Amino acid sequence: MSEKNIIQPVRWLDDTGRIFVSPGAAADIPGMVDIIDQTKLPHRLERLHLTDVTAVCGAIQRLSVRGAPAIGCAAALGLAACAQRFRTADPEAFLVQLHRTADTIAAERPTAVNLAWAIRRTVAAVRPGTIREMQQCLLDEALTILADDRARCAAIGQHGMSLLKPGMGVLTHCNAGALATGGCGTALAPIYTAWQAGCALHVFSDETRPLLQGSRLTAWELTAAGIPVTTICDSMAAQVMREGKIQLVIVGADRVAANGDTANKIGTYQLAIAARYHRIPFYVALPESTIDRTIPTGDAIPIEQRPADEIAHCPGAAIYNPAFDVTPHELITGFITENGIFSAIP
Amino acid sequence: MSEKNIIQPVRWLDDTGRIFVSPGAAADIPGMVDIIDQTKLPHRLERLHLTDVTAVCGAIQRLSVRGAPAIGCAAALGLAACAQRFRTADPEAFLVQLHRTADTIAAERPTAVNLAWAIRRTVAAVRPGTIREMQQCLLDEALTILADDRARCAAIGQHGMSLLKPGMGVLTHCNAGALATGGCGTALAPIYTAWQAGCALHVFSDETRPLLQGSRLTAWELTAAGIPVTTICDSMAAQVMREGKIQLVIVGADRVAANGDTANKIGTYQLAIAARYHRIPFYVALPESTIDRTIPTGDAIPIEQRPADEIAHCPGAAIYNPAFDVTPHELITGFITENGIFSAIP
Repeated sequence: MSEKNIIQPVRWLDDTGRIFVSPGAAADIPGMVDIIDQTKLPHRLERLHLTDVTAVCGAIQRLSVRGAPAIGCAAALGLAACAQRFRTADPEAFLVQLHRTADTIAAERPTAVNLAWAIRRTVAAVRPGTIREMQQCLLDEALTILADDRARCAAIGQHGMSLLKPGMGVLTHCNAGALATGGCGTALAPIYTAWQAGCALHVFSDETRPLLQGSRLTAWELTAAGIPVTTICDSMAAQVMREGKIQLVIVGADRVAANGDTANKIGTYQLAIAARYHRIPFYVALPESTIDRTIPTGDAIPIEQRPADEIAHCPGAAIYNPAFDVTPHELITGFITENGIFSAIP
Repeated sequence: MSEKNIIQPVRWLDDTGRIFVSPGAAADIPGMVDIIDQTKLPHRLERLHLTDVTAVCGAIQRLSVRGAPAIGCAAALGLAACAQRFRTADPEAFLVQLHRTADTIAAERPTAVNLAWAIRRTVAAVRPGTIREMQQCLLDEALTILADDRARCAAIGQHGMSLLKPGMGVLTHCNAGALATGGCGTALAPIYTAWQAGCALHVFSDETRPLLQGSRLTAWELTAAGIPVTTICDSMAAQVMREGKIQLVIVGADRVAANGDTANKIGTYQLAIAARYHRIPFYVALPESTIDRTIPTGDAIPIEQRPADEIAHCPGAAIYNPAFDVTPHELITGFITENGIFSAIP
């Protein structure tokens, strides 16, 4: 698939101004994680440059970078950037500081499995050697994670496009698009791929309260790519289904248990129930790294609670603000991964 | 039930400063509809004084007054206020202008049946006579509609409280409370009545996109009455149900077809599907004036489309913004009216 018109939210920028989205950067040239600040979209396209652990953690916590795969890519590159700046000449001390920094970044958000996975993988790539060699291992591995993610998104798109037919209405929730990954997205990958192959679709995008990733991000990136998209409030999905405008639902995933129970942005579960009621196929698109085989069912997935002030409210009233919910596998028609489409977790 | 701590959003205020919520006002003293401007809540409590057709229609269109019964009360009082100021001494010309004004106000919002019903009832109360006598008929009838609505709300509360038990979590959508009626509400009437009888409840209130009547209005009026309320995003309802926090759902209605299909705020249908999936009872509370027996099923209820700019969005993306949806009667456990609780439309 062509990547033109598809945004690249996470990349490596070195001090000479070169941009990398796959291995090839030299660790002895200081560099930084270069991300789109998604809190500013759709009104302003601003990029942030992250070089230290405070900035990396802050960007993840503030949701300047969000979407499980994109968080993983940014965290891995962030760790490599931090490690370029450790103030020690002792390889042992370097490793101690590396593990401490890795633990700090990995703890920033608890639900998405990709964050901890990418950090672990980056650290595990370090072979004993000089500090310079270890820094190169980290940077190469982080850029490999990014390149792999781009390839996985493309493969998800190729497999998933078989579900799409011209004239279809496809509903998605939150943003599992290019802005959420290193590549062309997960839930949106089949849509981009089908569209570029000439399949005329219409996308419906839930606005996705409380942070409006759907109306801010999904609508923005699809519009930028020329794909027609209609924003609806989350509460309207069932009505739009009842009106016959939706033939398929595709969402992303933050963590999938071994049995297929799927943690994703709050509202996904309600959408899956509505899709089932209307007998509309409901697919989850994900790289297999999102599957956490150590967790047997969704009951064991930790659900992050977000701050009350994300929801506009009345003084004196309480707020409940879970960031995710778990959709039980029995409501999921199938999983679209980089390896194919499966009716159960492969 | 005591009305203390329960707000009175619609009332008649005459030029001598007297306030009326039941008949007794003299039509030869100019007066005005006195409403809370609900667009300013929860941040400011401001009242508007309406004396002409432009102001009455504007307040209804802008949702300064909203909720089917409250719109009916405000429209009837608004017609009486307008009729005090018609510039004619000819009873025939007075009636012509009365009908024209009535038609203009009645056309302001198409979905709620109470608006047209209240206007028709007010006009039908006019007995031939002097202009002064006709003005008195209009004002008496409008204040009777308001008093009747208060009595109906109280009766809905008395009947509905039998569904509530201490410790229950009750979910509601939009605002069908005191702010939506002439009295203590429809969906919230059983909650107020049970609470005042010592039944410790917890209310969950959907924020209700796009205009946030739940987080702005329901949370505000319940908090003002001392009833504990937690605001959630519309997309969280199924998750909160799954967590076992909800034992009952009560919503209001804008129009109910003869077979029980219920038009209410967008999102009600999706909530009813989620309640059914979790086997949670789902009740609609309404005065019987909300039942439109001329309409056999929900398919014939007109659904108002609201302006796209109510939904924050991305330039270039389309918006779909239906204000209501229709919940089919098979998803409704029962109807709470001023005459009792019924499993089907009586």
